[in-house]
Amino acid sequence: MNIEKMLPSILRHENVARIEDDVLLIGDRRKLPFRREFYKAYDASDAACAIRMMVTQGGGPLETALQAMVLTARKFGKNMDELRKAGDMLASARKTNTTMKRELASLLDEFETMGSRAFADAAQELVNSRLEEYDEKYLAMAECGCRLIKDGDGILTTCFPEHSFFLSLSLAREAGKRFTVYAQETRPYLQGAHLTAPSLAELAFDHYLITDNMAAFLISSGKVNIYMTASDLATRRKWVINKLGTLSSAISCHAYGVPYYAFSMGFDDAYATLSGKEVEFRDPQEVKECQGIPVTGADVMALYPCFDVIPPEYVSAIVTPDEILR
Amino acid sequence: MNIEKMLPSILRHENVARIEDDVLLIGDRRKLPFRREFYKAYDASDAACAIRMMVTQGGGPLETALQAMVLTARKFGKNMDELRKAGDMLASARKTNTTMKRELASLLDEFETMGSRAFADAAQELVNSRLEEYDEKYLAMAECGCRLIKDGDGILTTCFPEHSFFLSLSLAREAGKRFTVYAQETRPYLQGAHLTAPSLAELAFDHYLITDNMAAFLISSGKVNIYMTASDLATRRKWVINKLGTLSSAISCHAYGVPYYAFSMGFDDAYATLSGKEVEFRDPQEVKECQGIPVTGADVMALYPCFDVIPPEYVSAIVTPDEILR
Repeated sequence: MNIEKMLPSILRHENVARIEDDVLLIGDRRKLPFRREFYKAYDASDAACAIRMMVTQGGGPLETALQAMVLTARKFGKNMDELRKAGDMLASARKTNTTMKRELASLLDEFETMGSRAFADAAQELVNSRLEEYDEKYLAMAECGCRLIKDGDGILTTCFPEHSFFLSLSLAREAGKRFTVYAQETRPYLQGAHLTAPSLAELAFDHYLITDNMAAFLISSGKVNIYMTASDLATRRKWVINKLGTLSSAISCHAYGVPYYAFSMGFDDAYATLSGKEVEFRDPQEVKECQGIPVTGADVMALYPCFDVIPPEYVSAIVTPDEILR
Repeated sequence: MNIEKMLPSILRHENVARIEDDVLLIGDRRKLPFRREFYKAYDASDAACAIRMMVTQGGGPLETALQAMVLTARKFGKNMDELRKAGDMLASARKTNTTMKRELASLLDEFETMGSRAFADAAQELVNSRLEEYDEKYLAMAECGCRLIKDGDGILTTCFPEHSFFLSLSLAREAGKRFTVYAQETRPYLQGAHLTAPSLAELAFDHYLITDNMAAFLISSGKVNIYMTASDLATRRKWVINKLGTLSSAISCHAYGVPYYAFSMGFDDAYATLSGKEVEFRDPQEVKECQGIPVTGADVMALYPCFDVIPPEYVSAIVTPDEILR
């Protein structure tokens, strides 16, 4: 099944990351929706840097990292030292989401078993087949997501909820369900305003962009009946890490009996609970600005924790390609 | 007791609204903290318009409206028709907060009993004595607020929490208590970033500006132990209306056993519960912009409800000048 036509353009593989003339072109999500630009990475270290600088986010870093491994293979052939170095750099560019780390490790294992002849082409083929596998997994999650959406629902989401969410909406529409999506803007980086709301408009879904403090208003007044997000980390005991703001919305949903579902490519078995897990703090200057323009006085102090840890009592279910953990 | 030195400059009477040469100068909170400007109102209709356009907010409209009544008295003397017309225009400039309406009605009752000679001067005196009474009420609430703050507290607040909050902090500091204030930026108008955080910095209180989606993170990690806001409307059955975002934070506080206190000048006895009360919606364009600059695509739809209705189960107490309603 070709899922590309059910996705917003930002999520099509060629717009996330692709190699052209030995350069890795990474779709620059920082400029969207105002400008469509690609960031040029010339090696894995460039690509790692782009991930750190939020050129791409959500599921983007995973595709970017895999293509950066192909770029490394084109440059060095089957040089496992260089490939491992590249893998380490890329994996450490994202501290919280560990899917990329696991996928890079398994890619390196496969590289190990491959012959040296025409290695770069074989690496590209392997990565392409991985991307196809992800598409199948996204679709499996979306089939479940579609079943969770009821006709007439108000659907809340936070940050950029990725493939599984948009595919869920597309399948639900095909099934004749009507719904309205409420997209939180997701300060300070505004992924909801920059990426999610324009993607919903592009696919012509009924939607409203809201500020991050409006969710409880909509939930308490019955406008929101279901909350769905992607996740950066999920465990088998039903803990979730996702973008800042998810905990607040999940608690409000719980208070009013609205279910919260997180999509996850798979569980990280390195963790049982995530209780007390330290999350990344970023530069507080981001909070003192909006789109680079100051919002407060220079002498004001600010804080920027960038993820929420959501305990199981506020998570109705985690949807993975293989199972629904309730 | 002179409370002026315990308040940020923005809250001093002369910076809220004052008459000079038959012009009402209204401190323009839309320009803060970047520029200190006064909006010039030449009559009550100008002043009502300034209130509608959010030139002043929180407790500002009440002081502005009273001074606009003095301006009307200077223009027309004791002309009850003109004075009543002015009162109606001013009261209708704010739909949700009803304190101003009650205070204008009682001012008009007093005007009625006054002689026509030197009426404008008498009106100014009456308004000045009202402002002094408010100061005493703010201080009475602050004495209670100070008792609620414990040494070492993390104090969360939303929007611009007005006199009683800043006075509570000043009294708590005088009493030797240490605390940190977390101010939510309060999108889309950014009153927290524009007014509250700079006021905290001005008074040298330990503080952090946070985005509106961070409260649950700080509450769940034990950094926030008490939540305090002003309120736009409060009832004897412990319902509160306050700026959008208050419900979300109050629910998160409740989930983690953190008390929420709202300051109110008095109860509106026109309401028992506020269940199902319609709140004001403003221009959704505000959500599509931040400080006048687009944050999303032109074809995106947005919503802007501007107040939250907080039911009694999420309100620990309402602090008024006369009593604490628990």
